[in-house]
Amino acid sequence: MIPERITSEGIAHHSYLVGSGGEAVVIDPRRDIGVYLEMAGRNDLRITRVFETHRNEDYVIGSLELARATGATVHHGAALPFAYGEPVRDGDRFRVGSLEIRVLETPGHTEESISLAVSETESPKRALAVFTGDALFAGDTGRTDFFPGREEEMGGTLYDSLHRKIFPLGDDVILCPAHGSGSVCGVNIADRDLSTLGYERAVNPQLRHDRKAFIADKVAEKHHTPAYFRQMERYNLQGPPPLPPHRFLPPLPVDRVKELAAAGAWLLDIRLPTSFAGGHIPGSLNLWRQGMAAFAGYYLTYDQPVVIIDEFNLQLEPVHRQLLRLGFDRVAGYLAGGFFAWAKAGEPIRRAGTLSVHELKGRLGDPSVYLLDVRDRSNFDRFGHLPGAHNVYVGELPPVIPTIPREKEILTFCDAGYKSSIAASLLLREGFDRVSTVLGSMAAWRAAGFPVER
Amino acid sequence: MIPERITSEGIAHHSYLVGSGGEAVVIDPRRDIGVYLEMAGRNDLRITRVFETHRNEDYVIGSLELARATGATVHHGAALPFAYGEPVRDGDRFRVGSLEIRVLETPGHTEESISLAVSETESPKRALAVFTGDALFAGDTGRTDFFPGREEEMGGTLYDSLHRKIFPLGDDVILCPAHGSGSVCGVNIADRDLSTLGYERAVNPQLRHDRKAFIADKVAEKHHTPAYFRQMERYNLQGPPPLPPHRFLPPLPVDRVKELAAAGAWLLDIRLPTSFAGGHIPGSLNLWRQGMAAFAGYYLTYDQPVVIIDEFNLQLEPVHRQLLRLGFDRVAGYLAGGFFAWAKAGEPIRRAGTLSVHELKGRLGDPSVYLLDVRDRSNFDRFGHLPGAHNVYVGELPPVIPTIPREKEILTFCDAGYKSSIAASLLLREGFDRVSTVLGSMAAWRAAGFPVER
Amino acid sequence: MIPERITSEGIAHHSYLVGSGGEAVVIDPRRDIGVYLEMAGRNDLRITRVFETHRNEDYVIGSLELARATGATVHHGAALPFAYGEPVRDGDRFRVGSLEIRVLETPGHTEESISLAVSETESPKRALAVFTGDALFAGDTGRTDFFPGREEEMGGTLYDSLHRKIFPLGDDVILCPAHGSGSVCGVNIADRDLSTLGYERAVNPQLRHDRKAFIADKVAEKHHTPAYFRQMERYNLQGPPPLPPHRFLPPLPVDRVKELAAAGAWLLDIRLPTSFAGGHIPGSLNLWRQGMAAFAGYYLTYDQPVVIIDEFNLQLEPVHRQLLRLGFDRVAGYLAGGFFAWAKAGEPIRRAGTLSVHELKGRLGDPSVYLLDVRDRSNFDRFGHLPGAHNVYVGELPPVIPTIPREKEILTFCDAGYKSSIAASLLLREGFDRVSTVLGSMAAWRAAGFPVER
Amino acid sequence: MIPERITSEGIAHHSYLVGSGGEAVVIDPRRDIGVYLEMAGRNDLRITRVFETHRNEDYVIGSLELARATGATVHHGAALPFAYGEPVRDGDRFRVGSLEIRVLETPGHTEESISLAVSETESPKRALAVFTGDALFAGDTGRTDFFPGREEEMGGTLYDSLHRKIFPLGDDVILCPAHGSGSVCGVNIADRDLSTLGYERAVNPQLRHDRKAFIADKVAEKHHTPAYFRQMERYNLQGPPPLPPHRFLPPLPVDRVKELAAAGAWLLDIRLPTSFAGGHIPGSLNLWRQGMAAFAGYYLTYDQPVVIIDEFNLQLEPVHRQLLRLGFDRVAGYLAGGFFAWAKAGEPIRRAGTLSVHELKGRLGDPSVYLLDVRDRSNFDRFGHLPGAHNVYVGELPPVIPTIPREKEILTFCDAGYKSSIAASLLLREGFDRVSTVLGSMAAWRAAGFPVER
Repeated sequence: MIPERITSEGIAHHSYLVGSGGEAVVIDPRRDIGVYLEMAGRNDLRITRVFETHRNEDYVIGSLELARATGATVHHGAALPFAYGEPVRDGDRFRVGSLEIRVLETPGHTEESISLAVSETESPKRALAVFTGDALFAGDTGRTDFFPGREEEMGGTLYDSLHRKIFPLGDDVILCPAHGSGSVCGVNIADRDLSTLGYERAVNPQLRHDRKAFIADKVAEKHHTPAYFRQMERYNLQGPPPLPPHRFLPPLPVDRVKELAAAGAWLLDIRLPTSFAGGHIPGSLNLWRQGMAAFAGYYLTYDQPVVIIDEFNLQLEPVHRQLLRLGFDRVAGYLAGGFFAWAKAGEPIRRAGTLSVHELKGRLGDPSVYLLDVRDRSNFDRFGHLPGAHNVYVGELPPVIPTIPREKEILTFCDAGYKSSIAASLLLREGFDRVSTVLGSMAAWRAAGFPVER
Repeated sequence: MIPERITSEGIAHHSYLVGSGGEAVVIDPRRDIGVYLEMAGRNDLRITRVFETHRNEDYVIGSLELARATGATVHHGAALPFAYGEPVRDGDRFRVGSLEIRVLETPGHTEESISLAVSETESPKRALAVFTGDALFAGDTGRTDFFPGREEEMGGTLYDSLHRKIFPLGDDVILCPAHGSGSVCGVNIADRDLSTLGYERAVNPQLRHDRKAFIADKVAEKHHTPAYFRQMERYNLQGPPPLPPHRFLPPLPVDRVKELAAAGAWLLDIRLPTSFAGGHIPGSLNLWRQGMAAFAGYYLTYDQPVVIIDEFNLQLEPVHRQLLRLGFDRVAGYLAGGFFAWAKAGEPIRRAGTLSVHELKGRLGDPSVYLLDVRDRSNFDRFGHLPGAHNVYVGELPPVIPTIPREKEILTFCDAGYKSSIAASLLLREGFDRVSTVLGSMAAWRAAGFPVER
Repeated sequence: MIPERITSEGIAHHSYLVGSGGEAVVIDPRRDIGVYLEMAGRNDLRITRVFETHRNEDYVIGSLELARATGATVHHGAALPFAYGEPVRDGDRFRVGSLEIRVLETPGHTEESISLAVSETESPKRALAVFTGDALFAGDTGRTDFFPGREEEMGGTLYDSLHRKIFPLGDDVILCPAHGSGSVCGVNIADRDLSTLGYERAVNPQLRHDRKAFIADKVAEKHHTPAYFRQMERYNLQGPPPLPPHRFLPPLPVDRVKELAAAGAWLLDIRLPTSFAGGHIPGSLNLWRQGMAAFAGYYLTYDQPVVIIDEFNLQLEPVHRQLLRLGFDRVAGYLAGGFFAWAKAGEPIRRAGTLSVHELKGRLGDPSVYLLDVRDRSNFDRFGHLPGAHNVYVGELPPVIPTIPREKEILTFCDAGYKSSIAASLLLREGFDRVSTVLGSMAAWRAAGFPVER
Repeated sequence: MIPERITSEGIAHHSYLVGSGGEAVVIDPRRDIGVYLEMAGRNDLRITRVFETHRNEDYVIGSLELARATGATVHHGAALPFAYGEPVRDGDRFRVGSLEIRVLETPGHTEESISLAVSETESPKRALAVFTGDALFAGDTGRTDFFPGREEEMGGTLYDSLHRKIFPLGDDVILCPAHGSGSVCGVNIADRDLSTLGYERAVNPQLRHDRKAFIADKVAEKHHTPAYFRQMERYNLQGPPPLPPHRFLPPLPVDRVKELAAAGAWLLDIRLPTSFAGGHIPGSLNLWRQGMAAFAGYYLTYDQPVVIIDEFNLQLEPVHRQLLRLGFDRVAGYLAGGFFAWAKAGEPIRRAGTLSVHELKGRLGDPSVYLLDVRDRSNFDRFGHLPGAHNVYVGELPPVIPTIPREKEILTFCDAGYKSSIAASLLLREGFDRVSTVLGSMAAWRAAGFPVER
């Protein structure tokens, strides 16, 4: 059992359980800890230690939950004044059955970042695997932009951590990073779930450079920082509040949803852009279910409850969990009966438009149209864009809305047609009334063989 | 364990497992028999007999599946020449642990219909419960329209079965019917899941009349008979084919879906009308997932495979099962990635319109509009309708489509806005191009306090 | 959905969820309330009220858990000063969608006992079902021995409640009692899960008598009162403590189990008597898993933690839940690896003997043998016993142990060979060293056709 | 998703699903293929190819099941005349989304053995992982004893496959073997679930030698070959029969179990040795549930049905599946009510003795005792043994039974006390009547600090 990976979808976060000889440690646990308890129980393992590779910014850490449930000790790097747990330092060693875990201080992403090398006690000199946290990913390295003004310094620090601490473990060491493809903690994390240090050294584009070029690369990277990161940083330094004891999501009748909405609650419409276009509750934010973890933190606020609006109310629990992992504990419930309950109640309904890329092609150049491309800048640049497109990243749209011409018909566009509907819903909330989403967006545009500009 | 009810949603079909002393019988099993096997296994019961209260018309009977899996004997009424099983006759008795099951011949719905009275062997003279099949429901009685020209005779026969066979069991006997609310096997089955003979005699409107009035009532009833009933009758007389061994629903890439569609496959869009309106594959039939069992049998044919189109591909297994229960064994799979995979592939997309009832109100009287109300006639009459509405029941729409004016904008309307989208999709398939669905339909119209005509 | 029954095995406790029109009430909920929340959620129902038919003695009531999770109001009878909730009185009516619930005060089992009649608002004069709490069961009536010295009075009170309040609802009303077969809240509850008032009036032996004979019958009844009832009474009057938030059962290594045992923890061996006989941890109490809810409350104490000892550690969660339902919140965990981990650690092992009834037959009359029959007195009398058997009910054994001759070989005997191993383990704990259990006991003796005395 | 490992417990068999870009291949599937279908479906992958690394000897291959369910093509090495599928040859390449799979012919374990190197198409020259089948394991290499008389040749062939084909892929390549710790396909497979070629080259003891020493090592290895291997070889060459369609395990009443036993059925007692000792059905074979896959194939035969005897009948499905994976398709069911149903029926019961190691110590040297140590020879030699112990491997016991002295008390002994009860049950079946099992056996003996001989 070396190691068992547990992935939290959406934020593409990997945590790990490493067990041997009746004992286990967990690395970077999430807040809903049932999966670790169950995995440990099924294998007759007691969880004795929790390691945090760094103070995570993108989710609520579950160390204290796990400590409360199991009595485990929590450890993190020594370079931050955590309000809980015990610091560890370079070279510290911990025995877990027939395994040994050794701490490597690997700053760069943050100052207190650590990596954990695991070896078998029969071959103590050789590491079998290394948990690199946000220092090294498959195909990428950790972002180094969290210390404004110190970008070069942190880039160099990360370079040194990689080359002096991690790579010397050996090419044949298995890489266990804290994130997979899709995380905002890297720019371009690769899709492979397994890798080794040697494989990364050979194919990871960031590792081909010398120190200077590496630093230049890191400084040039563009990252997004959703608003909720600040809350996560506070939580994960001080120790987050416990998960609400009853995580039951109650069905809410139409009247109750209206009351909540009137009092300022977020109406979170988790349906696809087509559904949202066909009819939705005025004022709702359209954020499709799988995009929840990645995008909710840009818009939702901690001061207002959230009401989930779905189609058939299937599998809302995973949606709820994604919100809880971002610390959104005030989910009031879901609209009983889904959107159709609203329609059947004779309540007002709003719509958005949709276009296929074929229809979009016919509208290009039309002066009454404003094409709003909400992809991130790097995709906009790298893969090209349509003539006349205005680019604002979807996560940064709200403050920019006042600059968008209200008199035009707004066509929202993105990578595949999901984020464009977030944008459409944000515009509709602000009173725009002719907003359409391009279904399939760039993916469809390219599949149709239409030309792009660069 | 007297009795355990197993309900198949959609067709609102109740089957029952009655177990005692290590033995069990199953009454009117469905074809996916896992639920009976598991329930029996969990309670250490061997299933030894299967009873069919009548040759069912609305689903594939599971008797032979169960017989193959357990060695149980199958029994039905003697008045039809079933190709399998053993006939039983009025007064036959069967012991099941400390229970006794007695056969009552109760024709009327069909000629070979039986009911089964169950009593405890300690009190053999008193029935505890009775399985009435389609003779008696909560709030209703079975339809008697299956023998054209013999409606009066069958109505009288059913009256006699009720009054001479079933009610003499006693008012305190628990009623276990073969259908609950929502089945097309009754007109107006009540929502209560439990009842007794006495309670029905007191409140069931069909039981207040004398024989003559009862017959008149039954003859006047209007029933729907979906096309697939004929296949069910064949199957359930001859013995249906076994369930396909691998009931795995494969994901199909866009190209494969296009091939299948080109070869005539049904594209079954199980999303809600809003989604369908926001964008759909040209030629698809929109039938929301919970309506599957009740409506698929009006349109789908047994000669062509079915491809399921969904939003997020959540919980397709129940949809698949509903189709299998109606004998639609040729489900080729589902569109991998859902409708958005189609959009991202740059394929053509079609849309429908939607209206709220407030918007509909503004369009009434507009001569360019054709308001197509697809509720069944009795709802149309009983609850009233909008001025100028044209009524065709959704199940009977296909042959009537040529009579609908193509030059007008068609507004489809129904009870709550689901069936209206079936109608919209049928019209769009036939080349209509301005079709809109009224979201919420009659439910919303009434909730908004708008007036109706009668 | 009228009504949905939720049964807690072991104590054979029935709770009910009654839902209609988006709303639901729960009657006599247990403490682990997930089942109600899930059932309500799946049906888009909000739980608005909780009714307690009486202050339960045999399990921790879940009303407050449910109130905390849903905001529901809690109601009980007015004749006890509950520290929480709102009293209801005879004739109070509550609307739940299209249903009405009417309160009947039906004292007898306890003074504040109520029953709840449910009717459809379309037929408000007729009850459809009645929740009788512990007043009326299938085949039995509630015990009336909780008020020492007032047995006759309470018997008469119960008679009046039945005949003046409950039966006048009508013979065709469905009976929904708070307990099924196996509960200590009745003497002889029948195995049928469904019944009606009329059926009970006809076959329930307690209902055949006039008032005087009924009272005499009730006064003559012999009931068992496990020690834990007192804790339940306290809890259920004052409001019990919340369920522990993390109900995770941790695996414990051998050393930790030894420490806990040394400090006084209960070692609860949930294996069958054969396993216990083949080898067990010295000092453990053998109580097979399905007997947990019915027998744990006689022996376990609230001041000491409990350690579960199993064979393969399969499905311990239901065992844990049974203990939690009785208020035993201090379950420390289970022996990791099961009993064999203990054996493999080279720890001391103890054994018991086993006998078949054929071997027992050969030992009858042997003066070195002491046959201890731990069935309850009524079974001992009613079904007869073996020559020379000494009868002490297993629940009352501990104080009687000093009177049992240590110099003899003790053969423990019961109904089927489970309780006899509880007795064997209690004796072994007290230092007896020749103790054997008769496998199959009375059931086997009778199956073998051996004679009994009366 | 590179790669997803699916482990079949007991035989410690690893199969793999490798998916990319909507497509997947499966390597060495087991017969119960639901896990692959579900995993593929959940990730929108079509399974297009199945690879068999070699003709497996220890389980029924699931290639044809998977081909029937998905239409996938089956591939194996070219050096055996398989009756199904298509041969592949060294250097053949297959594209799966953005991955490429390359065939390496790696004979040695069998002649047609292949390995499969997987690389990303972006870095086609570098392998990321390699599926080595039974050529290379963590800590071990595949057995080479299947060709009597050709042991040296096959050892050399395997050496060449490893050193000329597999290791040249690079130290940083992830190792994906077909077996983990506990399989009889290796002698000493390590407990680590993940490894790399470089790590193995450094720590795997078999890889430290030159060609000659490697061959000498392989020739000297002692392997066990359970009787069922022959059936697996037939099945896996010709194509095995399909899995029985209804894999429902029926509860069997005592009378039916007696009939089956009388007709020669195997009574397979899956309880622990303590339970078996405390009481069992005469003639039953005691093989604890987790040992099923590893040991059933030594004793069970394909010509007789199997009846499972358990304690509480919990989780029998995994036991059933283990039997099906070995091709034992004739599992008639399980004793309803478990062993206690047998006891309650008054049927004859047999017992075995148990001893702790402390008790065993007191018996050593007693001439009336025969200590039968059923560990395999290598454990007997490597870890030492007790004075006077007679060693016969449990898998090879049946033919040796006639040489064991019936007049003595037989004490069975093994590694931890499980296999010793298989041996005890085999002896009891042959009419021995004083047989006892040493609980904990060697593990307990060593834990107690008692001395061993070598």
